[in-house]
Amino acid sequence: MKLRVGILGATGAVGQKFIALLADHPWFEVSALAASERSAGRPYGEVVHWLEDSALPANVAKIEVQNAHEALLDCDFVFSGLDSSVAGQLEEAYARAGYPVISNARNFRMNPEVPLLIPEVNPDHLQLIETQDWGSEGFIVTNPNCASVGITMALKPLHDAFGLELVHVTTMQALSGAGYPGVASLDAVANVVPFISGEEEKVESEPLKMLGLLTGNCVQPASFRVSAQCTRVPVIDGHLAAVSLKFKTPNTSVQSAIRAITHFSTPKEVSKLPSSPARALELFDDPTYPQPRRHVNLGGGMTVSIGRVRACPILDVKFVCLVHNTVRGAAGGAILNAELLASRGKLKHRSGVEVAGSAF
Amino acid sequence: MKLRVGILGATGAVGQKFIALLADHPWFEVSALAASERSAGRPYGEVVHWLEDSALPANVAKIEVQNAHEALLDCDFVFSGLDSSVAGQLEEAYARAGYPVISNARNFRMNPEVPLLIPEVNPDHLQLIETQDWGSEGFIVTNPNCASVGITMALKPLHDAFGLELVHVTTMQALSGAGYPGVASLDAVANVVPFISGEEEKVESEPLKMLGLLTGNCVQPASFRVSAQCTRVPVIDGHLAAVSLKFKTPNTSVQSAIRAITHFSTPKEVSKLPSSPARALELFDDPTYPQPRRHVNLGGGMTVSIGRVRACPILDVKFVCLVHNTVRGAAGGAILNAELLASRGKLKHRSGVEVAGSAF
Amino acid sequence: MKLRVGILGATGAVGQKFIALLADHPWFEVSALAASERSAGRPYGEVVHWLEDSALPANVAKIEVQNAHEALLDCDFVFSGLDSSVAGQLEEAYARAGYPVISNARNFRMNPEVPLLIPEVNPDHLQLIETQDWGSEGFIVTNPNCASVGITMALKPLHDAFGLELVHVTTMQALSGAGYPGVASLDAVANVVPFISGEEEKVESEPLKMLGLLTGNCVQPASFRVSAQCTRVPVIDGHLAAVSLKFKTPNTSVQSAIRAITHFSTPKEVSKLPSSPARALELFDDPTYPQPRRHVNLGGGMTVSIGRVRACPILDVKFVCLVHNTVRGAAGGAILNAELLASRGKLKHRSGVEVAGSAF
Amino acid sequence: MKLRVGILGATGAVGQKFIALLADHPWFEVSALAASERSAGRPYGEVVHWLEDSALPANVAKIEVQNAHEALLDCDFVFSGLDSSVAGQLEEAYARAGYPVISNARNFRMNPEVPLLIPEVNPDHLQLIETQDWGSEGFIVTNPNCASVGITMALKPLHDAFGLELVHVTTMQALSGAGYPGVASLDAVANVVPFISGEEEKVESEPLKMLGLLTGNCVQPASFRVSAQCTRVPVIDGHLAAVSLKFKTPNTSVQSAIRAITHFSTPKEVSKLPSSPARALELFDDPTYPQPRRHVNLGGGMTVSIGRVRACPILDVKFVCLVHNTVRGAAGGAILNAELLASRGKLKHRSGVEVAGSAF
Repeated sequence: MKLRVGILGATGAVGQKFIALLADHPWFEVSALAASERSAGRPYGEVVHWLEDSALPANVAKIEVQNAHEALLDCDFVFSGLDSSVAGQLEEAYARAGYPVISNARNFRMNPEVPLLIPEVNPDHLQLIETQDWGSEGFIVTNPNCASVGITMALKPLHDAFGLELVHVTTMQALSGAGYPGVASLDAVANVVPFISGEEEKVESEPLKMLGLLTGNCVQPASFRVSAQCTRVPVIDGHLAAVSLKFKTPNTSVQSAIRAITHFSTPKEVSKLPSSPARALELFDDPTYPQPRRHVNLGGGMTVSIGRVRACPILDVKFVCLVHNTVRGAAGGAILNAELLASRGKLKHRSGVEVAGSAF
Repeated sequence: MKLRVGILGATGAVGQKFIALLADHPWFEVSALAASERSAGRPYGEVVHWLEDSALPANVAKIEVQNAHEALLDCDFVFSGLDSSVAGQLEEAYARAGYPVISNARNFRMNPEVPLLIPEVNPDHLQLIETQDWGSEGFIVTNPNCASVGITMALKPLHDAFGLELVHVTTMQALSGAGYPGVASLDAVANVVPFISGEEEKVESEPLKMLGLLTGNCVQPASFRVSAQCTRVPVIDGHLAAVSLKFKTPNTSVQSAIRAITHFSTPKEVSKLPSSPARALELFDDPTYPQPRRHVNLGGGMTVSIGRVRACPILDVKFVCLVHNTVRGAAGGAILNAELLASRGKLKHRSGVEVAGSAF
Repeated sequence: MKLRVGILGATGAVGQKFIALLADHPWFEVSALAASERSAGRPYGEVVHWLEDSALPANVAKIEVQNAHEALLDCDFVFSGLDSSVAGQLEEAYARAGYPVISNARNFRMNPEVPLLIPEVNPDHLQLIETQDWGSEGFIVTNPNCASVGITMALKPLHDAFGLELVHVTTMQALSGAGYPGVASLDAVANVVPFISGEEEKVESEPLKMLGLLTGNCVQPASFRVSAQCTRVPVIDGHLAAVSLKFKTPNTSVQSAIRAITHFSTPKEVSKLPSSPARALELFDDPTYPQPRRHVNLGGGMTVSIGRVRACPILDVKFVCLVHNTVRGAAGGAILNAELLASRGKLKHRSGVEVAGSAF
Repeated sequence: MKLRVGILGATGAVGQKFIALLADHPWFEVSALAASERSAGRPYGEVVHWLEDSALPANVAKIEVQNAHEALLDCDFVFSGLDSSVAGQLEEAYARAGYPVISNARNFRMNPEVPLLIPEVNPDHLQLIETQDWGSEGFIVTNPNCASVGITMALKPLHDAFGLELVHVTTMQALSGAGYPGVASLDAVANVVPFISGEEEKVESEPLKMLGLLTGNCVQPASFRVSAQCTRVPVIDGHLAAVSLKFKTPNTSVQSAIRAITHFSTPKEVSKLPSSPARALELFDDPTYPQPRRHVNLGGGMTVSIGRVRACPILDVKFVCLVHNTVRGAAGGAILNAELLASRGKLKHRSGVEVAGSAF
């Protein structure tokens, strides 16, 4: 029997991606949907402006949308694709009511008791949920910002092998990262916007937590520094980042950096999860690769592509990396997090749990 | 009486931009055109695939195109928009035959006797032409690569005031930088290509020469280091660069960097030239500016736009800058160079000079 | 002394284009601006999200924006760039208060007493303003929809010469036609949307009125029929239309159609107006022309470009035509209308006229 | 045992699409590849500039490319993705040598003995191969032009039910239709090119043959007339067409046209083929659908999407339709043709057939 999934923020771009990716999921099935008051009380298929290329699954189209602020969803755990303006309050309510909350929102990411999780990078951080105390069995697990995740995955083998000291990142981010309607077409077509509100702060902080060391019940952030310049380019899906970095280990060669990336392998516990790609990192030789339009869907959108690893004249090594911002960088990443939780027995059937609006 | 201009590589994208920008020029008039053998002997209007938005001037359309490899053009000086595969040989032939050669090609840029010139940046370097000895009155002056020029202009006031030590650059370059037909649309639309052949080497070397010190008859390159990552984005015109830098002067504040940029003014000798923009550098407060599509034509495409000057967590300061790659970064820059030469009396009417094919 | 212009809907995309085009206008100067309550009471430069490539004129930036619903503007006449949801009520209020109203909104276009005017097409229709009775000296003049105008101008010489019977139009319309923020970039990039709300109805009706016959004080609509399919394509500016048509005159050849277009000339009264382009219609031989990006700015955006005139296997003739939708198709067209009115003495200085909010 | 497939023109865009679509095909496997002399003698993986998003199959990468002009391929039948400049000669050589040739090239499409085949539209036309006499068992089957195919499939149920009299088509065609490198990005980005060489002629003729009646061994072309205007828009994949048409049956209502489209079903013989989509025609209610980027991949790129069926003021009915130009419109269509041939026993294992260069 599959675990029954509730989706908070179901009509938004991230909510839709959850639904698209969960169609035919072997472990999870969508059983309940919540959105704003405006959509409540009507079948999902009637209220959603469906943006995904794949068809809206017929069984999901029939689900009656509930007001996210009124009642808790009848499900075993929730995915949250909520906007940060409401995610804090609602996710906490679910955690207090005993639900596992697998969130894509930024509100709890930097909370010291909340794992900021990429299963291939810091699966041990999941232990943080034991430190959470919402007065119930509930807990919150988050996945990183859509730009942070690709960079962090690319940095993982390098940090493990040589220790990072400085990381300089310039991102060229896709339009889908701004949701829908998001960026106005007159700002996007044949243009670059050299600013994304709040993005650089996330890229400069989240990787440190994820690459930090779990000691006891606490994550000690990694000690390197990140400088980010985030820009928006006219690409549909796929955040590309140009990265330069300096290692703690002196005289680390480009060749050894390449080897570390090439030899990176997904932890066995993770590689068996349904959404885990065959290769978490794909390294290209062709200097014109990776390209967003060509490589964003590698590994079903869960693989991070890397290319142009070479020496940096002012730091040590530079390269480019690419991540699918709405799959690995949002809904797909959250689903992989849920799979890891499920495989560890942290997600259970919640039969008989009373669902009450009184939580709000 | 206007100076008569010959254009080498007249049918290419840069050659066309020369013709478009020289329409109604107060000092120069196009008198002769050279291209490859294929186009020779026919009126320019019949052989060119005109790409400029403005109409091809009727008087230029009538000029009979000459084979660049057969005979020297009848003119007072030449602009070279030649491809680097032939520019070396042909530009030398013209210099030997006594012509001033104002070149956009890369072949002689790093030659120690050839000025790599931006009039607002290093007008004193023009003195290098006195050291050239082609066995004639001829000389060669070059302008920098289309990405180097914007960065160098933005760096100029900062280097003068605080001394540069490290410069990290990620460029997002326009399609027109690749000429025509250039980048295939299937590589360009909704995509980023993270590589431009030969570009990073130029961005890492040319600024050092331009910001170097002229001592005696020699330019001592500046001693800072540059690291460049050059990418191609689906923009028509305008190379955007995300720059981070470290100063030699300790504790240089962001505010003092902003002041240096704001106070930069074009040397008087240059500001009177016809193609000199009212402001060489334009600094924006709006964090979403500058944008290629909105600001590329500032100052007739001769102004470099700067925005988002702020602290860099790993170096000192970071910002973005934008340059019109085919105007300031190619034909317009070369024309401004020629104007500076003309104002100094270095371009003269060549009446009576024998024009001979024997130079080849 | 220039006529003082008020602009209704000054902060919108059309309002901004009015301001951009009126900078340095020889006859008109912007003296007053009205927008929604949200912007009222603050300098225009602070409330507008300026979208034009040219700089916002400093004198306009200082004008205090007024609430369009509270008081009438102090000016000699108004341009209306209002949204149709409020244009009906406000334009009528201005007309009743004695103002000439030169409107780009659709509300009064099909009103039998209101001229739907293109100066090169139906300048005689201006006489309709004499039939208007707003209980004052005020009147309303409108310009057509941004897609209708290009098609109507292209049809004008053909209808005059041969009589139109059937017109089939498929448009490929630019993003700027939807205003700002307008079309979401995820709907625009690398995509076509085959529907524009309300557009086909306008293209199927407006040309009939403009090409209709003024008899007495009444316009008898032309009797041909139009079928339109309107689509949105990822172009910044410039509506392209593929047109096929059948003439009333039997056996009209393609050559005679080409001659009619070529021989079309702007009425003398119009050709002297400041915004009148050198050529109202430009006919291209190159089968790949006209193209939006290359030809939209011809004649300062006031020229309609035509190409590919050839036989149609099912009607008589087919061709493509291109119009700048925000210049000729909106603000520029309205300004030309005002210039025609001014040249006929229909716009006067309104010194001493009492400006009263009671009109509302 | 799978049938062994040879691909002519294997390095081109169509050739690559054949290889991508044939990966894991249940009936066919790629066994031999031919391209121009330049690529001959080297493994396919080394000579191809792979453009597909999916990975190049490892077994195909190893195949040694043969010179298409020197020797016949060792295989059971060939797919031809050849350019029309060489397709005529080479396809004939293969047919003479006894091979079934399933061609995407235009050379033999209008040959009266060659089927121009869409399995859902005119499977009976396949009988024409019996009339071919190449002095061998070989034969040639073609699929239509990438724009013709979508229109023809959309017209099929309407022609069957009501008889077509006039068809007016304006296409907005994707960049991939021009192959690689194809359209220059400077012609494509934020632009429309209103001309595609040779395209309108194909759209005006091919549907007539396909919707024609097979009588005896001869196809009588349908008697309606088509007028086409073909344009290129900045879309990656997916040709959109705006169609207006007049029926022979008087008073055909829009509702009955919609019913005919809705009730269309793939012939049983075809619906069982591996590449046959669940629905050949998909009709949308949403007036903003179909859109190239959103719907091009419906049915694996084999479904034609239709929308906006409504009355036409000058003909009877108008609508828009969308086809994946490189799948259904090229390689995928040819593969479906081959599947129909195979299911009818017309493709056999050619063991023991002598492969000889003497054919040339």
